Order: sequence, then structure tokens, then C-alpha cells
Amino acid sequence: MATIKEIAKHLGVSAGTVSKGLNGANDISESLRQTVLDTAVEMGYTPKQMRSKDCRKLCIFVENMEYETPDQFGYDIILGFRQAASQGEFSITLLPVTPAFQTEEKYDTFMLKNGFVGGFMIGFALQDDWMSQFNTTTIPTVLFDNYIRKNPAVCSIASDNLEGIDDAIVHLIHLGHRRIGLLNGSRHSCISELRRHAYIDSMTAHNLSFSEATMPYGYYVADTAKDHLDGLLSMGITALLCGNDLIASGVIEECRKRHIRVPDDLSVIGFDDIPLAAKLNPPLTTVRQYRSELGKSAFYTLTALINHVPVSRSLLRPQLIIRESTAPVKAEQ
Amino acid sequence: MATIKEIAKHLGVSAGTVSKGLNGANDISESLRQTVLDTAVEMGYTPKQMRSKDCRKLCIFVENMEYETPDQFGYDIILGFRQAASQGEFSITLLPVTPAFQTEEKYDTFMLKNGFVGGFMIGFALQDDWMSQFNTTTIPTVLFDNYIRKNPAVCSIASDNLEGIDDAIVHLIHLGHRRIGLLNGSRHSCISELRRHAYIDSMTAHNLSFSEATMPYGYYVADTAKDHLDGLLSMGITALLCGNDLIASGVIEECRKRHIRVPDDLSVIGFDDIPLAAKLNPPLTTVRQYRSELGKSAFYTLTALINHVPVSRSLLRPQLIIRESTAPVKAEQ
Repeated sequence: MATIKEIAKHLGVSAGTVSKGLNGANDISESLRQTVLDTAVEMGYTPKQMRSKDCRKLCIFVENMEYETPDQFGYDIILGFRQAASQGEFSITLLPVTPAFQTEEKYDTFMLKNGFVGGFMIGFALQDDWMSQFNTTTIPTVLFDNYIRKNPAVCSIASDNLEGIDDAIVHLIHLGHRRIGLLNGSRHSCISELRRHAYIDSMTAHNLSFSEATMPYGYYVADTAKDHLDGLLSMGITALLCGNDLIASGVIEECRKRHIRVPDDLSVIGFDDIPLAAKLNPPLTTVRQYRSELGKSAFYTLTALINHVPVSRSLLRPQLIIRESTAPVKAEQ
Repeated sequence: MATIKEIAKHLGVSAGTVSKGLNGANDISESLRQTVLDTAVEMGYTPKQMRSKDCRKLCIFVENMEYETPDQFGYDIILGFRQAASQGEFSITLLPVTPAFQTEEKYDTFMLKNGFVGGFMIGFALQDDWMSQFNTTTIPTVLFDNYIRKNPAVCSIASDNLEGIDDAIVHLIHLGHRRIGLLNGSRHSCISELRRHAYIDSMTAHNLSFSEATMPYGYYVADTAKDHLDGLLSMGITALLCGNDLIASGVIEECRKRHIRVPDDLSVIGFDDIPLAAKLNPPLTTVRQYRSELGKSAFYTLTALINHVPVSRSLLRPQLIIRESTAPVKAEQ
């Protein structure tokens, strides 16, 4: 680990200047301060207050996920994280990430200059340029629904998609269904890949057939249903898993327009169990993600990373909530 | 949750008798005490002291794993668990499990009567009859290297075999190897299944061929090498992954007897990085499991389960340690 002296030598400035840069003194220029911080990060410097047990500032970064009201997906995740953290005297900052922030701020430098000892990222997509920093960051960081290989400072938390999707498929099999499709969310999303993989694994394990046409990608919005429903129905499916509850709500709506009865003609299963799911007509059978517990798990896992335990993945058990959008398959005419 | 009164009514005894049974008073018979405890477990009773934040007794159960000296696999796992727990004022009991214990004690009843709020199981095999209790236990329990579906009170911790095996295979590919075998540990072991699955996944992803004959099961002991080495060599392999370091040590020894040079004629990779690995001749390239960190992770995960966060799996990043038992593949003659 670099010292202040080494950073000063490297930059050709005095140790006092480096110290001012690291401590946010306002009698050096902002550009010099930034240079000091960037260099400190590059050289692996950790400020004394970040090494002490008393400093426990954590930052939650949110992008592309709604979280402001209890009916939105991110609300309980953030609440759970805060609840778990409150037992350990951490202070939590919530930061909605803007494109401007991503352009202006390097992650490690931002964390260092603000004294954050760990980060929790929700709602990001791995193909964002900014996310590539998580391949190399040395700041303990937990990613919700994203997974990065190799970096021991970074961990993924998510629901156990293999269990959730298999529970849904087993439920449909018990109802007599064998032609089961998956209307997935966005291509290039880490979580879409995991759910597709889970679908393939489970269908294979139960000797059910599937093809590219039975597992199209869409988007994580209701509207995606109208682009894919006819194609899926033409494959003869009698039951449809959806990448999330919003997609399922769109499927139910599109079925209504086509006079296809849910569940009599088509069983539909969602994913997430957001509050909307129980209010749909018919109420939606769905794989519940325990959002508050995911938030708590993120905190516990971040604690492990801060204590140099290189967790790569932590998975939570989802639960199949059976409501009225699934029913026995119709007898063939 | 059942009350003392309900248990008393169910058994047709007084509440005082139930209370004595639960509190270990010695003025009721041992058989009545056992009946009270078993009934309390069945009815979902949790004694007051187990509900309080002050009672934090945890039990580590060990079977079929050596742990008494630092060169043995279990030693650092237990040490890491104790270290992480020491920060939270938990008291830890270490219990080597005997066949007699398994015959005499039901898990939930044992935990209840001893006031343990969580258990950590290392070295067990899932096919043990006793382990079937983990399908239904309500006591927060972490299993090392074993995975049970569905039960939200039980979690698996392990190294990330997919990452570890893929790192090993990528290393061999960089050395020019394409015919790579896996001499696995015991069939019916959860961890053998995961490593086999990881081998199949990685070989498939890198377009390398394999068959049942290139991935035989053996046992997690050095001796298993002599039963399988000739068969593997007859498949034309130039590199061999081993289920653990002991198997790899046996492979090196059997190669010596056959005048096969490691690594010139055959590259060998172990798994675990126990202290023996660096002392072999040649020193062993191996996938290191971070044993102390696995123990710490078990503790953190148990904390999550105790706080009703239904973690199903927590995985730790292993690391490929490159020593001298791997080398570029020989040019074909």
C-alpha cells in the first residue's frame, strides 16, 4: 500500500500538498486535488480513516430502477439494506446515477474522496462503459443481478433463478403442461441470461422440448408482449413464463384483446411478485423475489467483502406464489 | 409459534412440567424431558432465550474431515469461523459427530435443548440418513460443500467451482493442451458433481472434447490414482485436473512409477492448495480454496439466516496457484 510520501514523490509535490488533496483542503486547486486523488487510487493508497473500524460510510448507487414508492421494485431492496446496516452503525448515502456522473467520476476516486468503504449497485447494465471499472476496482462492491468474474473485491447478489424457474416449471408440469415458453426480458442483460439458462436446464431435466422460438428475448416492459405473443402461440405453447411481472401483465392484456382466456387457454407466470401481481385480473402466479431480504443480503455480503472474504455470488431462495393465472392444461380436442 | 401452554395441552401434562422439560430441570424423567423437547420442536416452539439477542450459541458439527492440525483441510475453516464470530460475541461449540450421536440425536431437538441458534456442518455427505433432516429443519444451518433445495433455513457455502475449474482449463489451453481429463473424487458427493459439471461447462465453452472416460470418479484419496491413471492416459490426455490435492499427489507418484514425467509428459493440477501441495515434487499447480475465508463466510451467512434472509448459496472465489506441475504440451512426434 502506497504512503503519502510515495504519492508526493511520484507527483513531484510535497507531502503536505498530497495530504491537502486527500483531505479536501480548499487551498489547493481542484485539478491538483483530482490528480492527487487519481494517483492515490492508482497507487493503492487507503486513507487512515478508511482503515479504521469507526469509518463506515457506504454508498448505494441506483440507475434504471424505480425505488421511490413501496410499489416499485427497488424500494424494499434499499430499505432492507438500510435496515441491516442500521444494526452496525453504518451511514448510508443513496446516489441516483446520472449520465453526467458517469462521465465525470471515476468510481474508485469518487469512493476514496468521499470516504466510502463499500458500494452497492442496483439497476445497472453490465454493457455500460462505466461498469467496466468493476473488473478492476479495489473497493468492496456488491452488484445486484450482475456478475463479474475474477475480481475478489466484487460480488454478485441475486435470487436463485435456477430454483425459481424450476419451481415454476414443476408447477406447470403438475398441471399437465408440456409446451412451456419463456418470454424473456432484454438480451444482453445478465439476469435474462441466467433465467434463459435456468429455463434450458429445467426443461432439459424434465425432458421437455424447447427451441429459440419458445424463448424469445423482449424487454422488461408490458409492451413487449404484443411483439412476441403471436409467435409464441404459433409454437403451440400452453403455458408461458415471463421475465418479470410487467411482461406478464402485458401478456394477460394481449390475451384479452385476442379472446384468449388466461388461465383456461394459456397459463401465465411472472417473476418478482411486485405489488401489481396480486392485483392483475386474474391475479398472477409468480416467482417472488424477497426484495427486502435481497437488500439485507447485499449488506451482509458487503460486510464480508470489507473483511476480505472474496464472495463471488450470494443467492437467495425465491418462492413460487400460486394465484389464479395458472390452471390445468386443456384436454386436447 | 407454539406456547408452553399449547405444548402442555397437546401432551396432557401441566405447563410446569413442560417448562421443566424445556429448561433441563432434573426432577422429571429423562424420557418425559425428551418427549417435551421433541414435541416443542414439532410444534415450532422457540424458547425465550433463543429469541433474545443475548443468546448467541452456535455449534460446528464435523464429520469425515480432518481439522486438528494446521496442515489439515478443516483447520482453517473452523478457525476462520471462530475469528468472524469473535467480533459478535458468539460462543462456539465444536462437535465431532459420531455414528452414535447420529443414532441418538435428532438435530432440531439437540439444538433446542442446548440453546444453539445456528449450526455449521462440515465434512458430511448428503446421502447420510442423518442429513435428510436438513430438508425440513427450522434451525438456521450452513452446509459446507453440500446443497439442499427449498429449505429457507439452510444455506450452502462452497468455493466457486465454475470459476476455479475454468481458470485451470484456460491455463492449460494457454500451454497448448487440448486433451484434458478430470480425475474426480467420490461419486454421489455434491462437490464432485459440481466439479464435473464445471469441467463439462468449461470444456464445452472452449470447444474441447471429453467423454465419460476422460472424467472418471475415484475417491478423495491419493490411492485412487493407481486405479484410473492408465485408463486416462489411454484416452490420450496430456493434462489432468484432479478432484483434490491428495488425488494429484497420487497421480504424480503413479507417474513416477511408470516413468512418465510431470509436467513434461503430463501436466497435473490439484484442487484445494493444502500445505502439502507446495511440497510435492514437482510443486503442484492447484486451485486454491480460501479455507479461512470459507469459514468466515459461513459465519456471515449463518448471521443472515438467523436474521431470516433465505440465502441458498454463497460462493467464494478460488484462485489458480501456478507452480511447476504444469508445462507446455509436448510437440507431437
